[in-house]
Amino acid sequence: MSPTPVSFASPVAPASYAWEATSEEVASRYGLPLERVARFDLNTAPVAPGVVRRVLSGGRFETPASEYPPSDYRRLVAAAARRYGVDAAEILVGAGADEILDIVAKALLPPGGRAVIPGPTYAMYRVLSEQRGAAVSLVPRLAAAAGHALDVAAVRAAARDADLVWLCSPNNPTALPEPPGSIRDLLEGLAADAAASGRDAPPVVLDEAYAEFVGSSLVDLRSDHPGLVVVRTLSKAYGLAGIRVGFAIASRAMIARLAPYRPPGSVSVLSVDIARAALSDDALPGEAVGRIAAERERLAAGLAAAGWAVGPSVTNFLLVGLGSAGRAAAAADSLLRLGLVPRTFDRDHPLADHLRITVRAPADDDRLVAAARAFGRAGR
Amino acid sequence: MSPTPVSFASPVAPASYAWEATSEEVASRYGLPLERVARFDLNTAPVAPGVVRRVLSGGRFETPASEYPPSDYRRLVAAAARRYGVDAAEILVGAGADEILDIVAKALLPPGGRAVIPGPTYAMYRVLSEQRGAAVSLVPRLAAAAGHALDVAAVRAAARDADLVWLCSPNNPTALPEPPGSIRDLLEGLAADAAASGRDAPPVVLDEAYAEFVGSSLVDLRSDHPGLVVVRTLSKAYGLAGIRVGFAIASRAMIARLAPYRPPGSVSVLSVDIARAALSDDALPGEAVGRIAAERERLAAGLAAAGWAVGPSVTNFLLVGLGSAGRAAAAADSLLRLGLVPRTFDRDHPLADHLRITVRAPADDDRLVAAARAFGRAGR
Repeated sequence: MSPTPVSFASPVAPASYAWEATSEEVASRYGLPLERVARFDLNTAPVAPGVVRRVLSGGRFETPASEYPPSDYRRLVAAAARRYGVDAAEILVGAGADEILDIVAKALLPPGGRAVIPGPTYAMYRVLSEQRGAAVSLVPRLAAAAGHALDVAAVRAAARDADLVWLCSPNNPTALPEPPGSIRDLLEGLAADAAASGRDAPPVVLDEAYAEFVGSSLVDLRSDHPGLVVVRTLSKAYGLAGIRVGFAIASRAMIARLAPYRPPGSVSVLSVDIARAALSDDALPGEAVGRIAAERERLAAGLAAAGWAVGPSVTNFLLVGLGSAGRAAAAADSLLRLGLVPRTFDRDHPLADHLRITVRAPADDDRLVAAARAFGRAGR
Repeated sequence: MSPTPVSFASPVAPASYAWEATSEEVASRYGLPLERVARFDLNTAPVAPGVVRRVLSGGRFETPASEYPPSDYRRLVAAAARRYGVDAAEILVGAGADEILDIVAKALLPPGGRAVIPGPTYAMYRVLSEQRGAAVSLVPRLAAAAGHALDVAAVRAAARDADLVWLCSPNNPTALPEPPGSIRDLLEGLAADAAASGRDAPPVVLDEAYAEFVGSSLVDLRSDHPGLVVVRTLSKAYGLAGIRVGFAIASRAMIARLAPYRPPGSVSVLSVDIARAALSDDALPGEAVGRIAAERERLAAGLAAAGWAVGPSVTNFLLVGLGSAGRAAAAADSLLRLGLVPRTFDRDHPLADHLRITVRAPADDDRLVAAARAFGRAGR
């Protein structure tokens, strides 16, 4: 087993999610017109797909706006099942992946329980675990040279008597998928440990918010691992963050455990129709993924030419090293003064010397590259 | 103090919300065309306001569908603050009132805590309390002759060392507001008990989902009672259940306690714009409320003429007594065979001999009255 240290967080004081500054706040703080603010911090798409306009211009919806959405989201679930290649009974609908994560925490993390989080990763796993009254074991990921990969042995050791494991692949903010086989190895290791001790293996959440960018999913592992919950979303590759639709995909048994915690109808009736149309459109999200991948390489080359250390990425964002936390903060400040909003990391975050940069439309990305060059020319 | 018995529910096995059968399920079960199914069980409005079409036909939104809603919902909050006559800092936005209730449970109910619920009332309070790992003290309401009113003394006694009290006025499903002064009396009693024992009074949630139908609100009590959380929604009088927007209104201190548990952006960007427009339209919801009140009296008269015992109502629904649980079940069955879906209550529910009937459009209500007459003529 790995000797990697595991840090435990108190279950007493739940963290809250640090909300991003709004574009209006950024504009006001830096004295800029609102239209000069460009968000490189939210990993959203540069443009929504045409399906939004198509659905809304019809003016008719499966459910009128005066009624609650159908409690089983039947047609939306059917479209998602076709798209993801699973049975309808293996799908649960949420108001964005964030609601799926919340349902998972409620259903699978008992108060006083313990969650394992290989970090750095998406901040919400810790927030939701702590809000549930659970302790958190943070297991550090491997070094950048090893792709910030999961430390399988350390996670397995930490998870041995845990209640839940939160995974994310491709991982946010490190921009790479786990190495081939490692998640399967972890699941099998957890199953072996559980069998040896006569317990059930802890459920494992696998957040695949960025799966479309690699064109592959581990959803098939659910048959061998009924405790696996794969999370998908329309917020990233589908370009539909604003409609708030996400899914859990899992064995029927696991969906049955999650379902009692699902609110009866949290997804708007307009979102239901847009999501269904998007999932039924075979051109989505392929074209957008190709366009973003090409633009990602162009942006990465531009930032590298400006002297920034751009890490490898398969996603719609880049993790960029600035050498020190101070220089990362200075770079962020120089970007923000121009209305370009990067994702920053707190001083005590393991990536405090990095910025996370979303791939946006070419014109915005050009502004970012120019700003990075100017930051370099200023000798910073 | 009242000797009224208080029943305690186990905090171990959380209930789930019993989802309504979908219209498709009803149509399929009773062999009806889908368009013959009319929902009298969801307390929604017969028609959505024109603001939906107006906002959607513009085709442009404050936030594009590819982006998350602004994390502070600034313009929506401003519109809600104007409409409800409070400060923006006294408002919290949720994806429907149900998400507000969930946030309240997370923020105010510690695992292992205890919630007080005067019942019968909206089922979600108990579900959310138990999902939080809290025990529930159910305090029976007064008899029908007393308007199913809050038993102030019994609630006060049960709440003395509780963590949260859930109130609903006008109450669902009993259709009447609490008697004037009773909620204020309860809040003052709780404050006095707390002061006497050197503790803080338990926070009190007051769900005012149906407040527009009585045209008054107890939101002003928040200044004297910083632990009061008033819940409002666009799902009922505003006719916008499908867009999923609700609000908490409370003292700044209470909003600050709730805010860390609010998801960063659960309301769709389309819903944000529709909700803002609806709250800014001075004609809303007044006209709809007047129309529904008139139709409610017409429906009540029709059902009474058919021999059903219609209780008084200030809301958009009626509580109808059928005399026995068996007869209520038979009446529900005869309605369902025609595609008319009433809200029923389980055999062990104190209102098992009742149906709850939403006031709908005149044509649908006429079908319901005809069905009630036929049920009577059949000697049942």
